[in-house]
Amino acid sequence: MKHWTDIALPIPEWLNTWGAGVPQTFPEINQRMAIVIDLARINLKYGGGPFGAAVFNRRTGELIAPGVNWVVPGKSSLLHAEVMALALAEQALGDYELASHGSFELVTSVEPCCQCLGVLMWAGVTSLVCGAYSEDAQAIGFNEGPRSPNWQQELVQRGISVTREVMRFQAVDVLQSYMGKIYNCHLQIQDPIK
Amino acid sequence: MKHWTDIALPIPEWLNTWGAGVPQTFPEINQRMAIVIDLARINLKYGGGPFGAAVFNRRTGELIAPGVNWVVPGKSSLLHAEVMALALAEQALGDYELASHGSFELVTSVEPCCQCLGVLMWAGVTSLVCGAYSEDAQAIGFNEGPRSPNWQQELVQRGISVTREVMRFQAVDVLQSYMGKIYNCHLQIQDPIK
Repeated sequence: MKHWTDIALPIPEWLNTWGAGVPQTFPEINQRMAIVIDLARINLKYGGGPFGAAVFNRRTGELIAPGVNWVVPGKSSLLHAEVMALALAEQALGDYELASHGSFELVTSVEPCCQCLGVLMWAGVTSLVCGAYSEDAQAIGFNEGPRSPNWQQELVQRGISVTREVMRFQAVDVLQSYMGKIYNCHLQIQDPIK
Repeated sequence: MKHWTDIALPIPEWLNTWGAGVPQTFPEINQRMAIVIDLARINLKYGGGPFGAAVFNRRTGELIAPGVNWVVPGKSSLLHAEVMALALAEQALGDYELASHGSFELVTSVEPCCQCLGVLMWAGVTSLVCGAYSEDAQAIGFNEGPRSPNWQQELVQRGISVTREVMRFQAVDVLQSYMGKIYNCHLQIQDPIK
């Protein structure tokens, strides 16, 4: 007989140590992005993927929750940086919709893949800030999956502002430092039009 | 000082009781869909949303993991039926990619929203079977979010077969029984073209 238990998605042990050593608030967009790129860079040392993200309170700049790509160590394809940050933020606020508790911003070192785009839609953030382009992740072999070709406008139409290319080159630098596993390669379609 | 803990996504207590009372294998597609629609219907009684899903071994028909929409009771926007089933399946197999362990099918009572489409991409299923159309969920006020307009072909191009309209009317019947909360309504865009 099968027995299913609650879904447990692990976060890296170093995340709280890291959190104890950084400011609690990040007023400026570049400060928010810098800390997110730092997360991505630290994550490489611990066997994670080259992606970082965090949820901030837009008004106060308070760091609500960080996230890193922990798919391989955490044994879950859900554990993209954006998903970790959004799920930790919902857990911190005890609600399935962040928008009920204020205006929150998801800052991510690389533009969201199809999974993270969907997850951020329902989490209830009102702002998305991205570092590297999707094309930068694709250039090292990562796959963004099937997204609406107008995903940025689709978010804006739903009241989520989108800011791109914040500290892009610093974010690309972390991508290019990555020497780990590119998973899901078999899902890459060869489309000469794209 | 903030302290973040592992992400815990609860599953309904009744899920294991339900699992103890159903067959372990479901050889036919209609048997798989029938049990998934049953999950959606039972879920309504416990305060969940009108959506069910499950992951099956395609060859043996073994039920690997069930899922229901548990967003409101579980306080997480991740807890769509498909996400629960896929995350439980990964947890059962102890891996971030189901495809490394065989060929698995995601059966869902309603076509996947933008979030579930992304999650199923990276979970590594090779087949998607859907009951009701997205339009059926939209008709009662649910929102599917921004997806590629060619999402079915996009999946097929990546080696994931798509079967639609399996027992659609039974799945629609559960949708129409739903009297609960339609969340994220503010994200609905008014697009007369769609």
